[in-house]
Amino acid sequence: MAQKPSLPKGTRDFLPEVTLRRTFIFDTIKTVFQKYGYAPIETPSMENLSVLTGKYGEEGDRLIFKILNSGDFLRKATELEDSRKLTPQIAEKALRYDLTVPFARFVVMNQHALTFPFKRYQIQSVFRADKPQKGRYREFVQCDADVVGSDSLLFEAEFLCIYDEALSKLGLDDFTIQINNRKILEGFAEVVNQSDKFTDICVAIDKLDKIGQEKVMAEMEARDIPAAAAQEIFRLITFEGTAEEKLDFLEKAFANSPAGTLGVQEMREIFETYAAFPRFAGTVDFNLKLARGLNYYTGAIYEVKANNVKIGSICGGGRYADLTGVFGRPGLSGVGISFGADRIYDVMEELDLFGEIPSTSTKVLVVNFGNEVRLQALAALNQLRSAGIGAEYYAEAAKMKKQFGYADKKGIPFTLIIGADEAASGQYQLKNMKEGSQQALNMEAIIQHLS
Amino acid sequence: MAQKPSLPKGTRDFLPEVTLRRTFIFDTIKTVFQKYGYAPIETPSMENLSVLTGKYGEEGDRLIFKILNSGDFLRKATELEDSRKLTPQIAEKALRYDLTVPFARFVVMNQHALTFPFKRYQIQSVFRADKPQKGRYREFVQCDADVVGSDSLLFEAEFLCIYDEALSKLGLDDFTIQINNRKILEGFAEVVNQSDKFTDICVAIDKLDKIGQEKVMAEMEARDIPAAAAQEIFRLITFEGTAEEKLDFLEKAFANSPAGTLGVQEMREIFETYAAFPRFAGTVDFNLKLARGLNYYTGAIYEVKANNVKIGSICGGGRYADLTGVFGRPGLSGVGISFGADRIYDVMEELDLFGEIPSTSTKVLVVNFGNEVRLQALAALNQLRSAGIGAEYYAEAAKMKKQFGYADKKGIPFTLIIGADEAASGQYQLKNMKEGSQQALNMEAIIQHLS
Repeated sequence: MAQKPSLPKGTRDFLPEVTLRRTFIFDTIKTVFQKYGYAPIETPSMENLSVLTGKYGEEGDRLIFKILNSGDFLRKATELEDSRKLTPQIAEKALRYDLTVPFARFVVMNQHALTFPFKRYQIQSVFRADKPQKGRYREFVQCDADVVGSDSLLFEAEFLCIYDEALSKLGLDDFTIQINNRKILEGFAEVVNQSDKFTDICVAIDKLDKIGQEKVMAEMEARDIPAAAAQEIFRLITFEGTAEEKLDFLEKAFANSPAGTLGVQEMREIFETYAAFPRFAGTVDFNLKLARGLNYYTGAIYEVKANNVKIGSICGGGRYADLTGVFGRPGLSGVGISFGADRIYDVMEELDLFGEIPSTSTKVLVVNFGNEVRLQALAALNQLRSAGIGAEYYAEAAKMKKQFGYADKKGIPFTLIIGADEAASGQYQLKNMKEGSQQALNMEAIIQHLS
Repeated sequence: MAQKPSLPKGTRDFLPEVTLRRTFIFDTIKTVFQKYGYAPIETPSMENLSVLTGKYGEEGDRLIFKILNSGDFLRKATELEDSRKLTPQIAEKALRYDLTVPFARFVVMNQHALTFPFKRYQIQSVFRADKPQKGRYREFVQCDADVVGSDSLLFEAEFLCIYDEALSKLGLDDFTIQINNRKILEGFAEVVNQSDKFTDICVAIDKLDKIGQEKVMAEMEARDIPAAAAQEIFRLITFEGTAEEKLDFLEKAFANSPAGTLGVQEMREIFETYAAFPRFAGTVDFNLKLARGLNYYTGAIYEVKANNVKIGSICGGGRYADLTGVFGRPGLSGVGISFGADRIYDVMEELDLFGEIPSTSTKVLVVNFGNEVRLQALAALNQLRSAGIGAEYYAEAAKMKKQFGYADKKGIPFTLIIGADEAASGQYQLKNMKEGSQQALNMEAIIQHLS
């Protein structure tokens, strides 16, 4: 009996038009990554569960998709009362949750084959058992570039360019690349004598955009940060001015904060190097209020926002002092960025930036006029293809209307008409499906026209 | 405490060099698919388990990777004694096992948005809980192209070209595209009055290459096929001659077999159409002994073998009368082919065909001579990148030996030396790392040289 097919919640089929648009996004980002010396790697979709567990916090552990062991998985299971305790007994593997932890594992396992500093990019699906909702999927693609094994701030400056160039190449012309430094945030904690509350301060500031100053102040109070300290932090992070003015201001404010002073030095060097790099369509904003929730960042942090589009950040990133220590290889510092391809897709759709991406790779449909002129039609088809032009021959001698309808629906921009007259003269009718116009041309001219 | 990282059995990390080689394979196949009018789609890595169950036989059901339900999956479980019965209670989703069943589901669920005949290609990972062994992995990539919604044999002929062109473009120059037709195999069963034993006959013939005629005869006997019938089948399938001669021979032999006669007619039309198409490096062999194990094929069947390399078939395919009936949309015939990218990789490696694929996309490393000439170095870097040339600047002013070593190990073919003298004169030293030679050039000439 026939079965009604369905898709798992939070997953998607991609039709040709959408796949081609997504491919355009991936290819554009990939080309920029490569130009800056990043090389592609791939890791398996499945990791050993133990590699992933404990790396994403308690909520993360819950959201990891586990893969049931094959065969008689109950044989060694003892915890048949408790789903949580049973899980590691019946599921040894799990699906990739992000690209960072697998990358750390990759670096440690392949370290003898890698050249450091190792610059890699990785464009692969990740899986999260999140509650599906608009814009949040259970399988989505991340586009990451990271360099490990170097403390040089050259990479921080280059990542500003990579964001700028890649997003500009995608057609975005109004976006802001925010940058800050966790050492400056440490400085804030230090100057108000709340270094032990550093994480709490970051978590609170991170919410500023969403909930506003008043509620953030309240949250700081709730986390036992004295009101005077909170107020002083706000005085510092709300300072307005150019990047230069902010750095001068902070330099004075951090006179007694080693961490803050180091942060200011780093930012000066990053901006100085960045000044030697080219500009594209984006704006760089030294945003003292940028905190980022993730705990493992220790230096520069980034977030990119599309202006005038209501959506969260479309890219993120930052420096981490120790990526691979958890897998037994301490002392490797790194810095990396991530493009959120799904959100970038939504932004591009809202701004109508996909206009010029064809919905098919077929450039021309050779119309089928039956056996009499079949050989001429197939010869034309071969010539088109050998010139690298995507071409199809309609599979039956159907009515013109049906054949043109096929071309129209598929978005094929041209049809080539080779009836008895055209076959005899060698002048074929090339029809522009959008304009409705057609002209008689020989094959040489047709190939030139379509190339 | 640090944890020793590991990979699940049968899965692989791909380092940059291997990823670039694999990408070359995928891109080459993709380009050919597109030229013939096939459009890309993607389906999720996860499918509902019910969509996959029962589609791949009993062994297939066992080899499907199931995904454990999230949350308290034991809540509704009752079969805590029996792994097999418990599985559907605690695992609603599973990993893609091939690309064909998800494609069938895709066609049914998206039929109103598709233009028929629908020509799609799909290059994605599939997952099988097979015992890992040399050349057999638990995650591997399939490259499939299918057309559904047309009975035209044009596609059968075109697929011969697609195999031929794609494998030739990969550099293979000695391979055989075998083609046969299940209707001809039906004809063999019909003429020996064993139509009810058709599947048994196919299964037995399919093993001929591996176990030889004697054992196949024995297997036919074991399956209750009379010795005289088996002998007659061997007389027919071992007929030697050109394709034309085989067809003439079969036409007579099938005088009383409607299925066989139809098969001969189909093959005549396929060869006739194929005669109008171009030839590349492969050979087409009309192989009457080709049977293919899969039951759902009903017309032309294909298998491609790399001659002189000991490995199974590297591609397969065929026509199926009903792809989507199981999901409630009967009457859609289709034909499709599949490239086994992993085996093709192994063949190319054995034949040393990857020679010219660079191991990095970085074309040139700008050597770091310190702050004095930093601005000139970064300006050169920018000019190279804006010309689309993959370029890196070494992140520290390290010793020359270290910087050249980095370029060497990464396989970067050129280094650009801009010391104080070069910066002053504007004539930079471009060093060819392979030949060890170097020449003084201005940036314009350098860009021209590297483009």
